[in-house]
Amino acid sequence: MPQIRVAACQINTVVGDLAGNVWRTLEALVEAEGAGADLAVLPELTITGYPPEDLLGRPAFVADNLAAFAEVVAGTGECAAVVGYVDIGPDGRLLNAAAVCRRGKVLGRYVKRMLPNYGVFDEQRWFVPGSGPATVYEVAGVSVGVTICEDMWFPAGPMAEQAAAGARLLVNANASPYSRGRRDERLEVLAGRVAETGCAIVYVNQVGGQDELVFDGASVVVGPDGDLLASAGQFVEEVLVCDVEVADDPGMTGVARVPVSSAGRTTGGAQLRPVAPVLDPVAEVYEALVLGTRDYLGKNGFTDAVIGLSGGIDSSLVAAVAVDAVGAERVHGVAMPSRYSSGGSVSDAVALAAALGIDLATAPIEQAHRALADTLAPLLGGEPTGLTDENLQSRIRGVLLMALSNANGWIVLTTGNKSEMATGYSTLYGDSAGGFAVIKDVAKTLVYELCRHRNARAGTELIPEAVLVKPPSAELRPDQRDDESLPPYEVLDPVMAGYVEGDRSADDLVAEGFDPVAVARVVGLVDRAEYKRRQMPPGVRISGKAFGKDRRMPITNHYRSVARSASPVDGTPSVV
Amino acid sequence: MPQIRVAACQINTVVGDLAGNVWRTLEALVEAEGAGADLAVLPELTITGYPPEDLLGRPAFVADNLAAFAEVVAGTGECAAVVGYVDIGPDGRLLNAAAVCRRGKVLGRYVKRMLPNYGVFDEQRWFVPGSGPATVYEVAGVSVGVTICEDMWFPAGPMAEQAAAGARLLVNANASPYSRGRRDERLEVLAGRVAETGCAIVYVNQVGGQDELVFDGASVVVGPDGDLLASAGQFVEEVLVCDVEVADDPGMTGVARVPVSSAGRTTGGAQLRPVAPVLDPVAEVYEALVLGTRDYLGKNGFTDAVIGLSGGIDSSLVAAVAVDAVGAERVHGVAMPSRYSSGGSVSDAVALAAALGIDLATAPIEQAHRALADTLAPLLGGEPTGLTDENLQSRIRGVLLMALSNANGWIVLTTGNKSEMATGYSTLYGDSAGGFAVIKDVAKTLVYELCRHRNARAGTELIPEAVLVKPPSAELRPDQRDDESLPPYEVLDPVMAGYVEGDRSADDLVAEGFDPVAVARVVGLVDRAEYKRRQMPPGVRISGKAFGKDRRMPITNHYRSVARSASPVDGTPSVV
Repeated sequence: MPQIRVAACQINTVVGDLAGNVWRTLEALVEAEGAGADLAVLPELTITGYPPEDLLGRPAFVADNLAAFAEVVAGTGECAAVVGYVDIGPDGRLLNAAAVCRRGKVLGRYVKRMLPNYGVFDEQRWFVPGSGPATVYEVAGVSVGVTICEDMWFPAGPMAEQAAAGARLLVNANASPYSRGRRDERLEVLAGRVAETGCAIVYVNQVGGQDELVFDGASVVVGPDGDLLASAGQFVEEVLVCDVEVADDPGMTGVARVPVSSAGRTTGGAQLRPVAPVLDPVAEVYEALVLGTRDYLGKNGFTDAVIGLSGGIDSSLVAAVAVDAVGAERVHGVAMPSRYSSGGSVSDAVALAAALGIDLATAPIEQAHRALADTLAPLLGGEPTGLTDENLQSRIRGVLLMALSNANGWIVLTTGNKSEMATGYSTLYGDSAGGFAVIKDVAKTLVYELCRHRNARAGTELIPEAVLVKPPSAELRPDQRDDESLPPYEVLDPVMAGYVEGDRSADDLVAEGFDPVAVARVVGLVDRAEYKRRQMPPGVRISGKAFGKDRRMPITNHYRSVARSASPVDGTPSVV
Repeated sequence: MPQIRVAACQINTVVGDLAGNVWRTLEALVEAEGAGADLAVLPELTITGYPPEDLLGRPAFVADNLAAFAEVVAGTGECAAVVGYVDIGPDGRLLNAAAVCRRGKVLGRYVKRMLPNYGVFDEQRWFVPGSGPATVYEVAGVSVGVTICEDMWFPAGPMAEQAAAGARLLVNANASPYSRGRRDERLEVLAGRVAETGCAIVYVNQVGGQDELVFDGASVVVGPDGDLLASAGQFVEEVLVCDVEVADDPGMTGVARVPVSSAGRTTGGAQLRPVAPVLDPVAEVYEALVLGTRDYLGKNGFTDAVIGLSGGIDSSLVAAVAVDAVGAERVHGVAMPSRYSSGGSVSDAVALAAALGIDLATAPIEQAHRALADTLAPLLGGEPTGLTDENLQSRIRGVLLMALSNANGWIVLTTGNKSEMATGYSTLYGDSAGGFAVIKDVAKTLVYELCRHRNARAGTELIPEAVLVKPPSAELRPDQRDDESLPPYEVLDPVMAGYVEGDRSADDLVAEGFDPVAVARVVGLVDRAEYKRRQMPPGVRISGKAFGKDRRMPITNHYRSVARSASPVDGTPSVV
């Protein structure tokens, strides 16, 4: 049976870094060449990085991308390469393309046919889809079909057409963002395409963080019988090399066949079939947060991060992630106790900083609180009270952190979790002030799991047990506790998931057994907090629907999905 | 020749306010009925408001929209009505639909065929396009075709097909956002469709603000010979009634013909042809700002607004707009002088407040500045200086305004203009802190024009002449002037427009004659400020491309479009 050595080049491109992406691509191709590969596959839109968004509206950017693509083509050698780039169609519209190149020449081009325009994707904003009959590339005696990302997700789609045209190995170049459980979904779809086509599939994904998205890599090679032949690590760069045996080319007539290379270079070579271990579901999220944070900082030119450490669990987790992302010496903690802070707050922050090995400064906010309260008193007819005074304290902390950011060039990492983002349980320009919101897509209950995971991995209390067991509190008034303002997180989190990620109605959630009062409370808070979320910094997306490009809700919106069976106001059924 | 009386129902719907939109629609239909209209046309997606965005992802919302639509249908009488709503296709996917209804019955449905997915539009995210042969509705002896918004913009498109099928009057239901000069563009396209089809056209647009969009109304009726028969006002609600004479129905065979009403009710009636005066280009922008602000406040439940008055031109314009939007008694000014404020700053703010009739509180920031500097000194190894100290002052003002917002329920209106948004010449959580950014899409040079326009309209110095003539300054350090940090606005503004709105490259702009150093400076600043813009509040879109849904640039982005011929660093040509 024909055999081919493939290299899945799971690289970390940077959006807009055309010269850098050329260099990363050529470096991977050198590695593939050195490993004797016949065919190297790069991720979707290798040259521009993914997603380039409205950079695609700039004609100069598209032209520069073509020039960069030509540099990659010129650098190809014996090993054929599938390289993603933006091409221009005959009508001037843009194409999401992948070229097959070898020995300095472009031998063929595939244009993505299925353009996702949902969730975080806007591809129909920029691209027109490809069409036309399937092309088969003859690489090292194996007939190969090329597709891009979404093309794989459809039965009776481009892959089936290519198999029907005689392809025996299907390559699929991806920029597939991570979300929880996404790897399993992909493997299931891959299994479906293998069963449908009888072909082997090389699935190549990019890796790295890009604003709110993090790409997990996890590239795989699946044999024609559905066996997982090789898999790359999650959240790491890797050139995965693997030998694949496929059935003989049936030699169909009437099909466009493009000769690429005549004979395999691997005859008699070793069977290389590395299979990376798979992270457990919580470890996977943790690594997503680390890589997303590391890349946001690194790709945006930040070396150091500063975090307000309250002694609470959210800031503790963010500090641990930051240390794993950029190193303890580049993470700076600041404790900013107020008149309402418990003694444990500062001592827990001290213990955390010591365990993580980060520095900790202390800046009590009393003097600034006093001064601002004095300044406001004539305007308010008295000192600030209630929510005004709570927000004031939070905003003083935001101002202090931003001053440290301005003075030292550190990025402020904010510490709000998804449960808080959802319900608006945060202060605009206060605890939400900063450049990157590490755990904004992590529900509070998952925050606990992640802390316990990190402690277990460390084999020690990196995050002090005291932090894990005390009741959550914003500490902005005496004896404040989150559960005075919000339903318990064990209830809040699944209701939020059902409403936000599942688009279920309040009625649906009540029918599923959730407490009607809690449902009405959570749903009402989510609806009203849209204006706050619009001004939040970006953060790592780890769920199937994050607050960000995923969920485009109007701020001005009178639709109220409160359970008609349990309106918190007067029990009257109400549609809007 | 057959004659029909049409009513263009230019109403102000609210996104998600299903019951309210039913009521607004029925109210307009009562008015149309009272005026003896044969056919009333409502805007696109009448029932849901436009754009409903990801509310469309909620099955309960779509179901509630259908129930609300049924209420409108049940309320129709003798006058036929074209009503926009969301329908569900046989495959469960959503349709942007308009129904023809009369006497409580739905007589036909048109599904939008051209779905815009560019600029501020995401319609392919939610809808599938309509298809199928043209339908002609027989209303009062006139053959009528129905289309929705984008359908009108294509020659040889849905309108041409309907005309070929025998339609003599084409109605087009719109939700077309305002931008400068948009009315003229629409009239040009309308003239093209009239010339192509020989039909009269009723163009109906909604009116009102929705987050960053403002809809200007400006509905028109154009006769078969291209004459403007009637036009509604800009930025106002109106039911525009007009009699239209069209050619005889050619009575094509093989075309779906739907009888709606048999005879016109207008025989012998008066010819009603109101034509509203057209605003001049600067007045048009001013009215857009006023309506956008009024509706953002009103539709989000705010009665009052608070504005930091610096004595500068930006805050003066915002105050004037706010007064026109909600009334002087609901606008509150706060002067927050610092150690660097000029004497004129406070006196100019006092003069402005007096001229506008708004109250003005004064809150010097010195005490808070002192306290925060003291708090920071141990962390910074000395008192804050330079940019850190400048931002600190701006953020203290943000904190004070937000405290007033929290205590009184007032919305903070921010005062940054587009030139500042573009270049990042603002302080995150400082002057940019607030709920609505009234002039974020208004370039500084246009800010001056708008102030002079408002003064001219008032016939007095509402905005003091002293404000108009002094050099712009942030007053955050001694003798600071904008033109020390930025190119003069006369240069900055057109370069920004070319780069941001025109997607031209730095090279293009230099070739167009702009100073290479200024181009490199502006382009570099625009590229670097993306992270700031992502956290800005929404504001009124008045240009063809605002910072918002219009321009989806990655934050993490290494592409640098600095003029290769004039790199400010070392003159070396550089692609990225």
